[in-house]
Amino acid sequence: MTPDAAPAAPPRPAIVLASGGLDSTTCLAIAKADGYGPVYTMAFDYGQRHRHELAAAERVARHYGVAEHRVVTIDLRQFGRSALTDDALAVPKNRDEAAMAAGVPVTYVPARNTIFLSYALAWAEVLKADDVFVGVNALDYSGYPDCRPEYVAAFQAMARLGTERTNFTVRAPLVHLSKAEIIRLGTGLGIDYGMTHSCYDPIVRGAGSDADVLACGRCDSCLLRKKGFAEAGVPDPTRYA
Amino acid sequence: MTPDAAPAAPPRPAIVLASGGLDSTTCLAIAKADGYGPVYTMAFDYGQRHRHELAAAERVARHYGVAEHRVVTIDLRQFGRSALTDDALAVPKNRDEAAMAAGVPVTYVPARNTIFLSYALAWAEVLKADDVFVGVNALDYSGYPDCRPEYVAAFQAMARLGTERTNFTVRAPLVHLSKAEIIRLGTGLGIDYGMTHSCYDPIVRGAGSDADVLACGRCDSCLLRKKGFAEAGVPDPTRYA
Repeated sequence: MTPDAAPAAPPRPAIVLASGGLDSTTCLAIAKADGYGPVYTMAFDYGQRHRHELAAAERVARHYGVAEHRVVTIDLRQFGRSALTDDALAVPKNRDEAAMAAGVPVTYVPARNTIFLSYALAWAEVLKADDVFVGVNALDYSGYPDCRPEYVAAFQAMARLGTERTNFTVRAPLVHLSKAEIIRLGTGLGIDYGMTHSCYDPIVRGAGSDADVLACGRCDSCLLRKKGFAEAGVPDPTRYA
Repeated sequence: MTPDAAPAAPPRPAIVLASGGLDSTTCLAIAKADGYGPVYTMAFDYGQRHRHELAAAERVARHYGVAEHRVVTIDLRQFGRSALTDDALAVPKNRDEAAMAAGVPVTYVPARNTIFLSYALAWAEVLKADDVFVGVNALDYSGYPDCRPEYVAAFQAMARLGTERTNFTVRAPLVHLSKAEIIRLGTGLGIDYGMTHSCYDPIVRGAGSDADVLACGRCDSCLLRKKGFAEAGVPDPTRYA
């Protein structure tokens, strides 16, 4: 280093919970744009009925050149009771917004965000990182109690007391945004949402490579996504069945 | 049921986090004595260096006839950084109390209790149970931040916001007791502490059956246990090497 070199900016490590979906990909782009670095991504193999979500998470992490993309295997399937992990329960289709808003849906996975954030907290301790980004969203949250801002604040308070990371912060930059606002924000950050995957019940054609995965277009997640692009006035790059 | 039969007491399901150690076994005996039922136990296979803890947890659960004993496999080893999961770090021996009290020890596992309680919360949602017992202890806690009462209260607050269990309660009946007080309490409840296992670094002689596992007598956990029995004036049934 030459004597007149500018001092290097101190590292601002951050972890982004990455599902390969629209929201978490927007969080990752925000963390990058806000100057966090090194940025780490953490995805969860929790016995989802489909694995395309994990492929999308890895694709997005690679695209953004993260320092490390970690996949944690956790067995939420043993707890059953969600259509996302339990083959005996059907993913609901073509529900209107009133039906989506009426209580906790069958796609709810027990304590999912709490378990995900707890693993991120463990990794944050090891990395000596204080910031974890999570794409939870209270407006389009379809009735999940663990997507509300008061929940996020309570997790942060608990984490600061339970670890050495007394400045630990859960960053939920999308929590008050509508899906359309998220899409506009992300589009402004240059995100290609064609990389991302939201469908709860994708249709696989052919040999199962990424090129053969189509969104069902009728589950809650697809319906919210479609509506978001329409309201944002942004062309929807999703390939629907 | 005959018309004059007394109405059945409503079920009071509870989950006890069970490590096979002295504290969690005392919690299980307290839950039973307080009339909770059905009682479920949850143990974690988190890549501990020794497996005798899991054998002890199962032995204790069987002894108390729990409704279900569940072992959740989680990979905390990938986070390294603790002598309990990382083979490259040695378990400290023969430390005095000043050394034990000086900061977070090398046996700390990142966010361990947060991850454990999160899984218990997920199971509680499925079982529709409101009570989770955990044997954390602030007095003899050897510097673990996630053993303090303010941490326990913060976890409970977060859990009530993040799930449908709005009366969820973390019961930590040992949190203000000394090891000697715990041992006196448990002895009064008829616990045979010979079933339990506390050592961080046990010595295995012979083929590795339970009969061949001896406590090292020199790790923090053994030292606190020995001192507890001595102070309680209760004979120590532990077999030390």
